[in-house]
Amino acid sequence: MSRIFNFNAGPAALPLEVLEEVQAELLDFADTGMSILEISHRSPAFEKVLEETKQDIAELLHLPEDYGIFFMAGGGSLQFSCVPYNFLTEGKTAAYADTGSFSDKAFQEAEKVGRAVKVFSSKAEGYDRVPRPEEVVLPENCAYLHITGNNTIEGTEYFAYPETNGVPLIADMSSEILSRPFPVEKFSLIYSGVQKNIGPAGAVLVIARRDFVAGRDKKLPVMMNYETMLEKDSLYNTPPVFAIYIVGKVAKWLKKQGGLEAMEAVNRKKAALLYGMLDRSPAFYKGRADKDSRSIMNVTFNLPTKELEAQFAEEGKRRGLGGLKGHRSVGGIRASIYNAMPLEGCEELAKFMEEFYQANK
Amino acid sequence: MSRIFNFNAGPAALPLEVLEEVQAELLDFADTGMSILEISHRSPAFEKVLEETKQDIAELLHLPEDYGIFFMAGGGSLQFSCVPYNFLTEGKTAAYADTGSFSDKAFQEAEKVGRAVKVFSSKAEGYDRVPRPEEVVLPENCAYLHITGNNTIEGTEYFAYPETNGVPLIADMSSEILSRPFPVEKFSLIYSGVQKNIGPAGAVLVIARRDFVAGRDKKLPVMMNYETMLEKDSLYNTPPVFAIYIVGKVAKWLKKQGGLEAMEAVNRKKAALLYGMLDRSPAFYKGRADKDSRSIMNVTFNLPTKELEAQFAEEGKRRGLGGLKGHRSVGGIRASIYNAMPLEGCEELAKFMEEFYQANK
Repeated sequence: MSRIFNFNAGPAALPLEVLEEVQAELLDFADTGMSILEISHRSPAFEKVLEETKQDIAELLHLPEDYGIFFMAGGGSLQFSCVPYNFLTEGKTAAYADTGSFSDKAFQEAEKVGRAVKVFSSKAEGYDRVPRPEEVVLPENCAYLHITGNNTIEGTEYFAYPETNGVPLIADMSSEILSRPFPVEKFSLIYSGVQKNIGPAGAVLVIARRDFVAGRDKKLPVMMNYETMLEKDSLYNTPPVFAIYIVGKVAKWLKKQGGLEAMEAVNRKKAALLYGMLDRSPAFYKGRADKDSRSIMNVTFNLPTKELEAQFAEEGKRRGLGGLKGHRSVGGIRASIYNAMPLEGCEELAKFMEEFYQANK
Repeated sequence: MSRIFNFNAGPAALPLEVLEEVQAELLDFADTGMSILEISHRSPAFEKVLEETKQDIAELLHLPEDYGIFFMAGGGSLQFSCVPYNFLTEGKTAAYADTGSFSDKAFQEAEKVGRAVKVFSSKAEGYDRVPRPEEVVLPENCAYLHITGNNTIEGTEYFAYPETNGVPLIADMSSEILSRPFPVEKFSLIYSGVQKNIGPAGAVLVIARRDFVAGRDKKLPVMMNYETMLEKDSLYNTPPVFAIYIVGKVAKWLKKQGGLEAMEAVNRKKAALLYGMLDRSPAFYKGRADKDSRSIMNVTFNLPTKELEAQFAEEGKRRGLGGLKGHRSVGGIRASIYNAMPLEGCEELAKFMEEFYQANK
């Protein structure tokens, strides 16, 4: 079969150029006589990959010097535990903004560890929006505020971040990292499962202020200790070599596209094409997100009936537009349009939406 | 560069046939129009991969019905914590057989959680052997006995396992899993980082008795809860899709080779070639392991001087025999000869050892 436009939410599309490079060098990486799948994580060839990957990401983010970059395993879900294990110390309260299913899961892991409160929730409204900055009021002795930068399932995204007045701000940016510039200096720690915007499943990118992760409890499980992971430069044990290698190639691809400023322009254009269809036929394509919170990564909407939704996904698939079914927990339609989705894919989808509307309105 | 014989300890050699298959289908997996790196972990295409992988491994191991198979992330090092977090409950004592650097690390993670004791240690003798079954005496109220089936750094391996009289036996089999048949019914839980014998870095294979992992504490970090991982069939969150896919291909390759019985025969033959050289020139090639504990996966030895060791590794490399340098913590020479190392590679290495001996004795 020829390659399709892949609207999956994650694992998700990767740039074709990246895949072709991986394929070409799969049997002999960097003249080592070995596959990247076979080389030691302590070999000079991999050290170079890791070093360049960190450097390219730092460049893309205009990362201040006092931040470190490292990779972990276990996905966002292990991070949900790592955050309270590292930072929710005795006598403190962790604050969570509940903007979707993954926020809620993160909160539940914190509750296992200590005192945690939700300082905002849009759950009752079907998670239709993220908070306005001024809505978030933090408790006394707040250990940190945890937010989910982009809500993959619900299709909402922060474009302005809460003011925490010195309380550490921690974000799960699994589904929007490196899709646009953002003020990284507002954050003490950011984690991102790489399988949406920047790589395959299997690695988590962590970006943290060095002084924030210093001084962790020595009794933490070693693989959950942020300080150790940073100090050991992602090499405390064998890291997910291949996933990091792909992230490195994606970072170079992003630089070639013109960096995050250029990515934001095209990502906004892609999203506008689809939201434009929602706005033109609001009774047929019912957007799930409040306009102010509309994600430029995941566009979610409902059709008048479940049958029409199934038909939409099926017809889309036949036209080479794959992965349009919404998350099993909420149904509906979701088009995930991460970095690797070309503008052309969104144009095709918008065209299909128009035709489907005309045929079924 | 043409492909070398790769004696790395892990990540390590993979069968060339497997790599070629991966390369061929990298842009379009199973007629999905997507790369295996891009498909959803909940897609039928991946479900089939996961199901077949588990089935093939169960077949290779002649696995009893009451065992489950699942995959986790975080490497053996996260397992070092998972084991005591899951099973070292109040009032119990965990027993560890200390046979190498990784055993000791596992023990240290248990000490963070509760009472743990070493019931055997060969540390004072440079970790030259594993215990004889009768040497291991367990404490009262023993939560479990933890052993390291094969000690990658030291080059020792269990061929007979301690009798625990009902105390759960847990093994780290990261470096020998699927290299030969073994009595799996003796074990309550086995974990294996897949990056040595059966895949690339990025996944851990867990094999566990279903009743042993049932009833875990709901307050465990969800990604460390064995019960959840088994119940959710490795899909609580996005698993390391690509690593599992490769393990699946390796399992099929092992079946084609004739299963674990056939692998044991060739693995023993490979090891015998190298240990034969050690036995013929014991003053020049000084084996690190006691004869009874000699690993058939990692052959470790010293030469008369550090300079000769460096020269040996260097000359080997020039002849296409890569990765012969011993682990940075112990030095010397190590030849890792996992499943994917062909007999021919060991023949070449034995020939080189003979020539090097004649030239430098």
